[in-house]
Amino acid sequence: MVSEHRLRRRVQFYETDSAGMVHFSCFFRYMEEAEHAMWREAGLSIAPEGADVGFPRVSVACEYHRPLRFEDEFDVSIRITAIADKTITYACVVSKGDTRIASGTLTIACVRKREGEPMKATSIPPEIAARFQVAVGADR
Amino acid sequence: MVSEHRLRRRVQFYETDSAGMVHFSCFFRYMEEAEHAMWREAGLSIAPEGADVGFPRVSVACEYHRPLRFEDEFDVSIRITAIADKTITYACVVSKGDTRIASGTLTIACVRKREGEPMKATSIPPEIAARFQVAVGADR
Amino acid sequence: MVSEHRLRRRVQFYETDSAGMVHFSCFFRYMEEAEHAMWREAGLSIAPEGADVGFPRVSVACEYHRPLRFEDEFDVSIRITAIADKTITYACVVSKGDTRIASGTLTIACVRKREGEPMKATSIPPEIAARFQVAVGADR
Amino acid sequence: MVSEHRLRRRVQFYETDSAGMVHFSCFFRYMEEAEHAMWREAGLSIAPEGADVGFPRVSVACEYHRPLRFEDEFDVSIRITAIADKTITYACVVSKGDTRIASGTLTIACVRKREGEPMKATSIPPEIAARFQVAVGADR
Repeated sequence: MVSEHRLRRRVQFYETDSAGMVHFSCFFRYMEEAEHAMWREAGLSIAPEGADVGFPRVSVACEYHRPLRFEDEFDVSIRITAIADKTITYACVVSKGDTRIASGTLTIACVRKREGEPMKATSIPPEIAARFQVAVGADR
Repeated sequence: MVSEHRLRRRVQFYETDSAGMVHFSCFFRYMEEAEHAMWREAGLSIAPEGADVGFPRVSVACEYHRPLRFEDEFDVSIRITAIADKTITYACVVSKGDTRIASGTLTIACVRKREGEPMKATSIPPEIAARFQVAVGADR
Repeated sequence: MVSEHRLRRRVQFYETDSAGMVHFSCFFRYMEEAEHAMWREAGLSIAPEGADVGFPRVSVACEYHRPLRFEDEFDVSIRITAIADKTITYACVVSKGDTRIASGTLTIACVRKREGEPMKATSIPPEIAARFQVAVGADR
Repeated sequence: MVSEHRLRRRVQFYETDSAGMVHFSCFFRYMEEAEHAMWREAGLSIAPEGADVGFPRVSVACEYHRPLRFEDEFDVSIRITAIADKTITYACVVSKGDTRIASGTLTIACVRKREGEPMKATSIPPEIAARFQVAVGADR
């Protein structure tokens, strides 16, 4: 069972903006990259072809402490802080060496997808839920 | 003095993802578009060339209620909910007709930029602060 | 029958990079925005839900003459330069006032989409082909 | 002296579009990632802080052969096909295993940047030109 993951990444030029730093929206992309890598580590794809459930985000947040700049190497640490019947919540920290750059949260919901129907929240399939657990100390 | 703004937009194809809806990170770009349009309505650019202050985001959040899809027309309403010495906070609502799609907040900080020095929070210049006020009822 | 379209747009902050100008990849997004707006002007969506044909790009190019910067207003002019059984080719010009900023081409192919099968080129459906024609003088 | 580079990458979810494949504009970002990695391999940054020259793209092109989908692993091979006084041209191939996905070209120009002045093409500084050479067979 997987409860956390760490990703190392470098800032790409197209992620910077004319203030000379990574655009704030890109941090959510970094968190998502780490999340999907964690799912792969758990032996899963979050969006396999033909899946009848999906995992849209329902609530996200981020606080920015320091800027990231072109070619900076950084880490994205993600860990599971809560698992409910239909949702999973993650906490993420983006850091560069010992410097905390940003910290955020993502809550995703499991939804059933049927062509032409609105998405509807549903229980996380047991074969998926069985691969994940809340990180130790995440409830502090 | 300006305290709110409404922007009408259409979903572009490159903003969608393979779940068939707008990627969640793009909602922050929509909120920023509305913010910058509000600054223009106030007679300002948030990032004029050669400016010695900038306005990075320090804290953002978004809740997602319904998906947006390719070519959907939608509105982004932004209003100022707080103005402090060094920060401004906005609340945003993304809606499609009468349907609430997403709601979010952005807090930006005024920073002084000096080549080769770290950014440092500073008071919002009075000629900028004079153009904005908190929206009526925003403190509820 | 539609053969050209002009779109007015403003540069968004997230489209700039740390060189202080619009990232070169965004110009392809501008061209696509103009293309999709032209399809709408023709009474069509290029990607309606549940469609069994799609229009991926098979060949694109762009030359860059001048930079675009944050908040610049610009026009994207697109016109059809060739229509074949399975492909459409467009020429695009991005300009700011009288200044030519960039010029590009896009060729799209009509493909049949079947779940679990590779995409396969197919004739453009006649109800789509009937809405478009090559722009006057485009063969010069 | 460096003349080519190969980068391995995985498709991220935010790079896909609602056609279920990587958006065509992202391939230019992949090529640029490979280019910048090649510069780093040569001991250089293409955009160091405070640099007085920059390398905007002046001409780019791409042909698309097969789609890339979420989580596909792929390679981007870049090699230098021409070096002139003020420009460098690269050829790129994106492949997934033995399958050619896309092939493209980028031409970049060296420009002098002065605050408040338009960019002006200039000779590539010798300490940069000395690190690169045209790839063997690239003139075929």
